[in-house]
Amino acid sequence: MILNLNSEDLMALEKHQRAHLINSLGGFKSVALVGTTDKEGNTNLAVFSSLFHVGANPPLIGLIFRPSPPERNTFSNIIETGYYTINHINESIYKQAHQTSARYDKGVSEFEITGLNSDYKDNFFAPYVAESKVKLGIHFKEKIDITINNTILVIGEIIQIYLPQDCLASDGFIDLEKANSITCSGLDSYHKTVQLDRLSYAKPNQEITSILNNEKH
Amino acid sequence: MILNLNSEDLMALEKHQRAHLINSLGGFKSVALVGTTDKEGNTNLAVFSSLFHVGANPPLIGLIFRPSPPERNTFSNIIETGYYTINHINESIYKQAHQTSARYDKGVSEFEITGLNSDYKDNFFAPYVAESKVKLGIHFKEKIDITINNTILVIGEIIQIYLPQDCLASDGFIDLEKANSITCSGLDSYHKTVQLDRLSYAKPNQEITSILNNEKH
Repeated sequence: MILNLNSEDLMALEKHQRAHLINSLGGFKSVALVGTTDKEGNTNLAVFSSLFHVGANPPLIGLIFRPSPPERNTFSNIIETGYYTINHINESIYKQAHQTSARYDKGVSEFEITGLNSDYKDNFFAPYVAESKVKLGIHFKEKIDITINNTILVIGEIIQIYLPQDCLASDGFIDLEKANSITCSGLDSYHKTVQLDRLSYAKPNQEITSILNNEKH
Repeated sequence: MILNLNSEDLMALEKHQRAHLINSLGGFKSVALVGTTDKEGNTNLAVFSSLFHVGANPPLIGLIFRPSPPERNTFSNIIETGYYTINHINESIYKQAHQTSARYDKGVSEFEITGLNSDYKDNFFAPYVAESKVKLGIHFKEKIDITINNTILVIGEIIQIYLPQDCLASDGFIDLEKANSITCSGLDSYHKTVQLDRLSYAKPNQEITSILNNEKH
């Protein structure tokens, strides 16, 4: 049976029910650990599922920040220092990654709490996560206020990339499944993936029969 | 072996290689079909993987638009009419969904081309995709120019939701796997998912041993 909910139904839900429901509606999400330090070298690590591709040239990635405590240190560290890391989460570390969403005091490093190891590479200011297999070094570029709900979009440029060589295809595609990266849904559900297919570049003159029998590259 | 690429290496890549690589780096992505009509009732359908949760109260969802032809009709229809639909993609329709990324002329409806059926519900202005199992009716709220790479963030409010009743948990979580929603990576890779776990709300005083043995809700 198909359920229909409208705006009134949504507003009638209990706050946590609404949060679970709305967070589920966007579909499966990117999920990663964002690593930062403040000027004194105190490290911070936080899980984000509001991560998205902004553009390939220049290589830009976006993050949404909410006005809630767990992410505040990450935000102020990014603004203060200009650098952060984005570390893919794999099956071995998703429980520790999820735990970084707890509301620790500013003095507490989520690296220590979770047992994940910081990894400083090539003089990059912010720490990577040693246990992560796909890691990005990001240079802060711009923050945009989303006034409608008091959130902030932070856009950064990807300036360093680390990934297992055998996950990189000759056309530039990264096999994230081979890298063991996972996805999430809602507020707390983690999923591994099974590739259905890579589809060829879509052209207008393809017949519907060829679409349904689309061949691999 | 771990491969390291920096900004210079990225710029040295061939354009399509760079697009595949950078589009892969953000991890698994939400992917959905956006349905619109213009004022004359001409329908349009386009696949988007730049979809993300903006907030739960009010229920907001964001989409990034690039200055490239396939998405232009969708954008102008949203601005012109104020309404659009977001339709989850499932295993049965991902090939048709991918085909909507081809550069059709404005007069051509991707519903007809792909054989997907439009579905008008409850007097909502824009068409849903009949074959989709999780469908959202969206009211346009705001557009924000991202000047750094000439893209546009469109934010809309979720005002209608349709989903299979047996996918909705009592706490508001939607079992997207049961709804057969899929995820994508890079520019052309589609994946189904296998749930690892739902984790309980993270609290600061949890011991690392309990994190690693985190129990389900």
